Amino acid sequence: MTTDAQILTALRAADAGGVSGAELSQRFGISRAAIWARIEELRMLGYDISASPHLGYRLVSAPDLLHADDLTARLGKTKVVGRDLRVFQETTSTNDVIEKLARDGVKEGVVVFAETQTKGRGRLGRKWASPARNGLWFSVLLRPDLRPQEATRLTVAAATALARAIRRVARVTPQIKWPNDILIGGKKVVGILTEMSAELDRVRHVILGIGVDVNLNAGDFPAELRKLATSLKIESGAAVDRAELAAVILRELDADYARVIGGRFAAVADEWEAQCLTLGRNVTVDLGGRRIQGYAESLDEDGTLLIRTQHGRLERIIGGDVTLEK
Amino acid sequence: MTTDAQILTALRAADAGGVSGAELSQRFGISRAAIWARIEELRMLGYDISASPHLGYRLVSAPDLLHADDLTARLGKTKVVGRDLRVFQETTSTNDVIEKLARDGVKEGVVVFAETQTKGRGRLGRKWASPARNGLWFSVLLRPDLRPQEATRLTVAAATALARAIRRVARVTPQIKWPNDILIGGKKVVGILTEMSAELDRVRHVILGIGVDVNLNAGDFPAELRKLATSLKIESGAAVDRAELAAVILRELDADYARVIGGRFAAVADEWEAQCLTLGRNVTVDLGGRRIQGYAESLDEDGTLLIRTQHGRLERIIGGDVTLEK
Repeated sequence: MTTDAQILTALRAADAGGVSGAELSQRFGISRAAIWARIEELRMLGYDISASPHLGYRLVSAPDLLHADDLTARLGKTKVVGRDLRVFQETTSTNDVIEKLARDGVKEGVVVFAETQTKGRGRLGRKWASPARNGLWFSVLLRPDLRPQEATRLTVAAATALARAIRRVARVTPQIKWPNDILIGGKKVVGILTEMSAELDRVRHVILGIGVDVNLNAGDFPAELRKLATSLKIESGAAVDRAELAAVILRELDADYARVIGGRFAAVADEWEAQCLTLGRNVTVDLGGRRIQGYAESLDEDGTLLIRTQHGRLERIIGGDVTLEK
Repeated sequence: MTTDAQILTALRAADAGGVSGAELSQRFGISRAAIWARIEELRMLGYDISASPHLGYRLVSAPDLLHADDLTARLGKTKVVGRDLRVFQETTSTNDVIEKLARDGVKEGVVVFAETQTKGRGRLGRKWASPARNGLWFSVLLRPDLRPQEATRLTVAAATALARAIRRVARVTPQIKWPNDILIGGKKVVGILTEMSAELDRVRHVILGIGVDVNLNAGDFPAELRKLATSLKIESGAAVDRAELAAVILRELDADYARVIGGRFAAVADEWEAQCLTLGRNVTVDLGGRRIQGYAESLDEDGTLLIRTQHGRLERIIGGDVTLEK
């Protein structure tokens, strides 16, 4: 952990009484002047840190920005997800950045955030709008020992973790639309793009690209999306602390990833099913060339959607566009 | 087509009588001096081109090297495979080169050959020896409209095309071992590594990495492989023209790829099954953590191997190591 992250952790832990420069200096083995210099830098970034001879340093408020050291400090210790955490002010797409890192052999768990993406993308080559500082646009590199057809499990795990984090931080009730959307009140608030590099029988790496519409106002959405998309701020009625939400999401994702690779996917799937908008409904799936209509019956052990057609046949659906019938 | 490729094509077409400098000059719209300069360059590369006032230029023999223009000339017109063809003297792995091209948005069909690879690789991260000028080490970029689990079809198509080309050029009878090996007399002579980049429900690109042991002598194989691997030269008793073999392989691969994307995979699968060593045998499949024993019954519509276990259950096998029982 960097000194900045250590200082922020210490300030957060001591939030009632504050912590003295002498104590920080001793704890981290650097001079009080160096502590003061780091505090000044954090203040420049927008961290409101008060100082008094009596109370020492206190963190009054953190700015609405993503700062790698701060995220690391908030996140705490995880097994895999977020062990390495990077923030870009702007990038084409965080998935592109992660893909380069993956090819350079970077270990799994690295997370890349961008305050804005110039070429954010969704499934099937669609565009994803990523306005600056209003959302969480990030990607996670995973290297699970899975077969390609099992990669859907990671999308399911990500959706479960995101739903849990949103419930906890924004105090709204999200629903999951198979395979990769999270909705609130029927409108999309999170998209997940799962990309993989694989041999025929084993995944080399998976990149989870995640977009969360956090503090967007209705006017921030393109006109054609306003009926389909929403944000946590619109739904909860209050702005959400993005850094806190990010930390909670990564912690939950770390826990659910551990369940998937530890052979406990069934537990994740159960939790997913309980929040799923798609199961138990009549749906139409557009598979590009082909359409399937039927009853969304269940999820199989790989995260595949099982649809019972009107002819009684069970169809295994991996992707495609799912429309829910009224 | 470059001028070199045009000249080589004209020389091959006129192989009995030869073709005059004047005729070449007129046909390609460049001066006789320029034709002469190109011929000189080809001679420097080892092309034995005779010239007489009477007969004009004649191609006596081509050197044992892979030359992009020559390969293009031999290949002739294809739909997809080999429309863009590049030869490297040395590279880490031709799959790596193609992957970079794929990310740069290069169109499907590009083929990269290397005279030698310093980091040739096989399935499951294994090494692949690629001694200089003795084999064909190449990769093909494809962008089929398939789902990830259908990518096995391309391995099946590649194996079929390779078997046909080897039968035709080397006059030996190859057999196919599911999913990606071609054997002669029980020893491996071709390996195919299929790598893909995909979303959950659609392939973005597939890279077929192909290694053919063409003119290796027994001593060229590492000691531990001598009982398991062989070359076309060893099996046919004569050196094989690598450039001719390469052209025939690419032409056949182009034809089989057209069958796969044109909805005629069943025809490819039939041809594959007729040469398959694996079907109709008792096999053991090692899937890393798990072993499956049973009878290799058939191939399904995706190219998946169906194995009937002793309990009567049908297992769908996508990868793994298959051992044939005696």
